[in-house]
Amino acid sequence: MENLKFKENKLFIIDQTLLPNEEKWVEITNKEQAYNAIKTLMVRGAPAIGIFAGYSMAIFSQNNDIYELKNYLDSSRPTAVNLSWATARIVKAYENGKNLIEEAIAIHNEDIEMCRKISEYALTLLHDGDGILTHCNAGELATSKYGTGLGPLILGKEMGYNFKVFSDETRPLLQGARLTSYELEKAGIDVTLICDNMASFVMKQGKINAVLVGCDRVAANGDTANKIGTSGVAILAEYYGIPFYVLGPYSTIDFNCSNGNDIEIEERDSEEIKNLYFEKSTALKETKCFNPAFDVTDHSLITAIITDKGIVRPPYNINLRKILND
Amino acid sequence: MENLKFKENKLFIIDQTLLPNEEKWVEITNKEQAYNAIKTLMVRGAPAIGIFAGYSMAIFSQNNDIYELKNYLDSSRPTAVNLSWATARIVKAYENGKNLIEEAIAIHNEDIEMCRKISEYALTLLHDGDGILTHCNAGELATSKYGTGLGPLILGKEMGYNFKVFSDETRPLLQGARLTSYELEKAGIDVTLICDNMASFVMKQGKINAVLVGCDRVAANGDTANKIGTSGVAILAEYYGIPFYVLGPYSTIDFNCSNGNDIEIEERDSEEIKNLYFEKSTALKETKCFNPAFDVTDHSLITAIITDKGIVRPPYNINLRKILND
Repeated sequence: MENLKFKENKLFIIDQTLLPNEEKWVEITNKEQAYNAIKTLMVRGAPAIGIFAGYSMAIFSQNNDIYELKNYLDSSRPTAVNLSWATARIVKAYENGKNLIEEAIAIHNEDIEMCRKISEYALTLLHDGDGILTHCNAGELATSKYGTGLGPLILGKEMGYNFKVFSDETRPLLQGARLTSYELEKAGIDVTLICDNMASFVMKQGKINAVLVGCDRVAANGDTANKIGTSGVAILAEYYGIPFYVLGPYSTIDFNCSNGNDIEIEERDSEEIKNLYFEKSTALKETKCFNPAFDVTDHSLITAIITDKGIVRPPYNINLRKILND
Repeated sequence: MENLKFKENKLFIIDQTLLPNEEKWVEITNKEQAYNAIKTLMVRGAPAIGIFAGYSMAIFSQNNDIYELKNYLDSSRPTAVNLSWATARIVKAYENGKNLIEEAIAIHNEDIEMCRKISEYALTLLHDGDGILTHCNAGELATSKYGTGLGPLILGKEMGYNFKVFSDETRPLLQGARLTSYELEKAGIDVTLICDNMASFVMKQGKINAVLVGCDRVAANGDTANKIGTSGVAILAEYYGIPFYVLGPYSTIDFNCSNGNDIEIEERDSEEIKNLYFEKSTALKETKCFNPAFDVTDHSLITAIITDKGIVRPPYNINLRKILND
């Protein structure tokens, strides 16, 4: 399940906003298209955004000032740290006189390797037959291959594990329905779609052995920004005594953020709640909505953070730095 | 905001499935229409179902065996105890030789009085300016007047209170969007619509002083069946230290149920999750869904149960019986 192709200096992405009803590939030919592809979620998922931004920087810096281009692309989604991480890496390669296309390909290949490592570490914590709850989409569509949150499920399937996965539909953008249930179904994994508000019910029924989620930004103390609703799932998991695992590459850990209060939360348009995807508006025109795109899960609710460098357990303010220094 | 009219022996209801885009009144002329109106949620909300069933029994028992009619209507929604409570009351009136229409009108008028009392009791626990979170719809559309869960907000508005209400949209049937935000907006109350998975975020921001929900059935120990997602909201409220109030008439308390495990949970069609209300399916045709319509909130998560007989505090297994005996 690829989301991006780079061939003969041309960049193509699958328009994830059209899934699962249509698989449409789009060529990205200029920086405005690249900006909009991130902004409108045609490409989404922190690692996938980083990979896409790497290629975009390498290609479009040929006709644009690289520093202005970096600032421009960085502004398309403020919460995803991988975005500015990848654009900074291409700028650094430029300053060091490296080939930028090769650097972008390196970012891409390293992501595949990272996802594989995260998935392997995570599988050591899971058992064949486990019931798994996941929120939003942190699979192959959100990364390069395998995924982060979904990585152990997809790699596990290749290795003969049979998980029973429950996927929160993840309102308002329905990534859990449109993307996660789609790619798990395509991978032949047993997946059941539920509404976000049913997570408590399936947990109470004893159907969930572990929660797996990706992450958009992890602060130095382990506080984790991820798709809106993640913090609620973590609170439910704690209540029911279910381990709650955050999975992500080391580039998602932002040591410039001491804790979750430092993480800027993107607020999106009301129309996403009332009108997007629906035949008719779900509420009156004058009814206001509040639409935060992310929330911060307190580190105290996280059983372990699973990175490509290994599994990190509390206390995170010590152990996150330790594993990076190893 | 009326949902039902009884005039010259004719029964009319507003089709709540078409709100907020269309206000359509439908005449109910036979028992099959009455059954379907409950089954398809044209009329919904435990007290409203009871009132509607009372009128339906009174009218359609003129041409049907009253005992068969009771069983038939009771089977339209197994979870709502008010349904079988109201049909049993009409049967009893029949056996006692009473006028059945007068009995149905009495059920209706008593509900208005009950809602007013619940609302008055609840207002003693709230303060002007409070931020309130509510889930699903327990307002005038779900009852007769004022409502249960929304009753103190609507009565409070009449009395000059200004609440800031957050309404969970309540997937999959979106009662919080289509009905709650609609009727609060119409009542001139400050309401903000959010997705179910945003409740944790607004609680963390300190915007919520109390959670108010209705109930479909309360067991003798206080365990409460209500719309799917209610138990999750209760767990979040406990985590953030926010009082969680259940509001409902005494007829909702079922002393035949010793605890929540005795409450049968209705499971509804997958299509409600993937297709209903949407322009396009949100998941693949082959993707299965799990769609429980209710969940049970453990009594330990409930700060108080507010009935028309008064406010009941834990221990519920003692105090629920006590207040009914007073």
